[in-house]
Amino acid sequence: MSTWRKAQELAASRGIDALLVTPGADLRYLTGYVALPLERLTCLVLPASGAPTLVVPALERQAAVASGVDVEIATWTETEDPFALVAQLVGEATTIGLDDHMWAARVFAFGEAMPQADQVLAGSLVQVRIRKDAAEVAALRDAGLAIDQVHSRVHEWLRPGRTEREVGADIAAAILEAGHETVDFVIVGSGPNGASPHHELSDRVIEVGEPVVVDIGGTMPSGYCSDSTRNYLAGGTVDPEYAKAYAVLEEAHQAQREHARPGVTAESVDAIGRQIIADAGYGDLFIHRTGHGIGQETHEEPYIVEGNDLVLEEGMAFSIEPGIYFEGRFGARIEDIAVCTADGLEVLNNTPRGLVAL
Amino acid sequence: MSTWRKAQELAASRGIDALLVTPGADLRYLTGYVALPLERLTCLVLPASGAPTLVVPALERQAAVASGVDVEIATWTETEDPFALVAQLVGEATTIGLDDHMWAARVFAFGEAMPQADQVLAGSLVQVRIRKDAAEVAALRDAGLAIDQVHSRVHEWLRPGRTEREVGADIAAAILEAGHETVDFVIVGSGPNGASPHHELSDRVIEVGEPVVVDIGGTMPSGYCSDSTRNYLAGGTVDPEYAKAYAVLEEAHQAQREHARPGVTAESVDAIGRQIIADAGYGDLFIHRTGHGIGQETHEEPYIVEGNDLVLEEGMAFSIEPGIYFEGRFGARIEDIAVCTADGLEVLNNTPRGLVAL
Repeated sequence: MSTWRKAQELAASRGIDALLVTPGADLRYLTGYVALPLERLTCLVLPASGAPTLVVPALERQAAVASGVDVEIATWTETEDPFALVAQLVGEATTIGLDDHMWAARVFAFGEAMPQADQVLAGSLVQVRIRKDAAEVAALRDAGLAIDQVHSRVHEWLRPGRTEREVGADIAAAILEAGHETVDFVIVGSGPNGASPHHELSDRVIEVGEPVVVDIGGTMPSGYCSDSTRNYLAGGTVDPEYAKAYAVLEEAHQAQREHARPGVTAESVDAIGRQIIADAGYGDLFIHRTGHGIGQETHEEPYIVEGNDLVLEEGMAFSIEPGIYFEGRFGARIEDIAVCTADGLEVLNNTPRGLVAL
Repeated sequence: MSTWRKAQELAASRGIDALLVTPGADLRYLTGYVALPLERLTCLVLPASGAPTLVVPALERQAAVASGVDVEIATWTETEDPFALVAQLVGEATTIGLDDHMWAARVFAFGEAMPQADQVLAGSLVQVRIRKDAAEVAALRDAGLAIDQVHSRVHEWLRPGRTEREVGADIAAAILEAGHETVDFVIVGSGPNGASPHHELSDRVIEVGEPVVVDIGGTMPSGYCSDSTRNYLAGGTVDPEYAKAYAVLEEAHQAQREHARPGVTAESVDAIGRQIIADAGYGDLFIHRTGHGIGQETHEEPYIVEGNDLVLEEGMAFSIEPGIYFEGRFGARIEDIAVCTADGLEVLNNTPRGLVAL
């Protein structure tokens, strides 16, 4: 069944008359069309019953056709009003579901073009994609292999005397060489920068004996994303306190990999790792959740976080990435993507998880 | 004056009590902070009077501080509600301006957290950035030089027998080598694919004698974007009809460069080129507007399009990119970024505009 038919059934069952989906992971998932998130309106109009229409700028028609979308295409030219066109297609619908990442400007423009309708978030309607099928898991597996290739080559570029930005540029090129279509992020956090989980790149020169957090990912031609973190030692000898915390982190990560499976809650995966880190005295230094879902977006449902009592199911894919951060000194984070199988967990990143001495 | 102070004054003058700005070009422009557009809420709370606050996830605090933002920072931890925090900071405000690209999910969440307030689009309030100052023009100039370097090297990779995707991968690597921090888009449109203005890459093998449209851009470490299109001939001899149309396109582009300056309207720049193309009998084949503004976003105000009577001013930067497209056969587009000076136009791309024979 087309993915848009599944979303259509869900919409009908929840009293939503039509879904409007603009460019992003939801549109790609529903139609296969990878549209740039640009200022000209592209929008899937998906009524709860009847045929959907993909509204595209006239100059994107060929690209939409070439992408093989299995819905009707309607176009608008540079001087026409695309919101009026969508309103016409929506007709008398009174409850309109909007994709979660739609721009505010579009939310308002649709509101003006369809004053009779109530707007609601589509949210979980298009979150049928939280459970990956076999083809999606295969695509994530390929993405995992690709980013593992890059981690296997980090030793070629990471050394004392180079800046994070220089190392990052080499890594970015390698992410493309490994088969990704885009570089989504490159974090090279040396010494104290490693203590900021989302630090990216700076002109800081890497020094001998510093731990370096390398967290990288890209999007494959399939549309599926990679994301993996490893930790490197730029020559010299590791600080004993870092080594002690790192051993705890490895233990926590292993416990989480062994625990995660269908039937356990997302928050229980977080808790089992957090307890180990807290018991070792580092509880205050694990300052983020354990992980995020991944698919056609790097961050999507399910989130592996305290308070999320979602029960994991086969096909759910997510990161396991506990971290320990010593502000002003250094940090460590180990991150794999994993996917629930029928009765366990398949881990998609498999380069060595220990501190890699260079 | 801080850019956020300018936006604050504009908000006050229009009866908006507070602006909420989430990650994207507006946030970067107002604070200098480059935040990833992720699921954890980051939001600038900018009251019409009084001190602004940047709300960030606790784990992003170091990154925000390191970016040198000149506003107070408030953090929330993984299990707290960031929308309640923003509502508390907004207080009794009754008219809230939202950035144009805010996600629908945030629009709704802010609506629930602040039921007393009316939401409006911030739109032009943060569009003070339509006029670039000298430092911004310098950054765009650097971006132009960087992408020109890449076009100067296309002959190294583009040849018959290779696929568009292979050529595109080499170009993407070169975009990074030339100093860009990210590759934003790589279009290699060979033969009939060149007739689709936003075609990107495919596995189509480039054949001898085919014209190839190469439209590429990236973002520099400064945050400013590049975007330039040139046309290449992959060996062999050019189709005479293509050569004839190409000469018309060059004439149109030149006329537009000579016309654009402070005091003329955006639509007049479009019209002068469109008339030349129409007079030559290709009017129906120029299927898009002439251009888009550019700065920290590749596409932003001002749009060079029929119906936009905006009068150009010093510091406005935009693309001039007329095109002629023969569906099913080939296409041509010449694109430069240009910026209005006090009394004329500075063109920021300067590789040869003629069809480049390889």
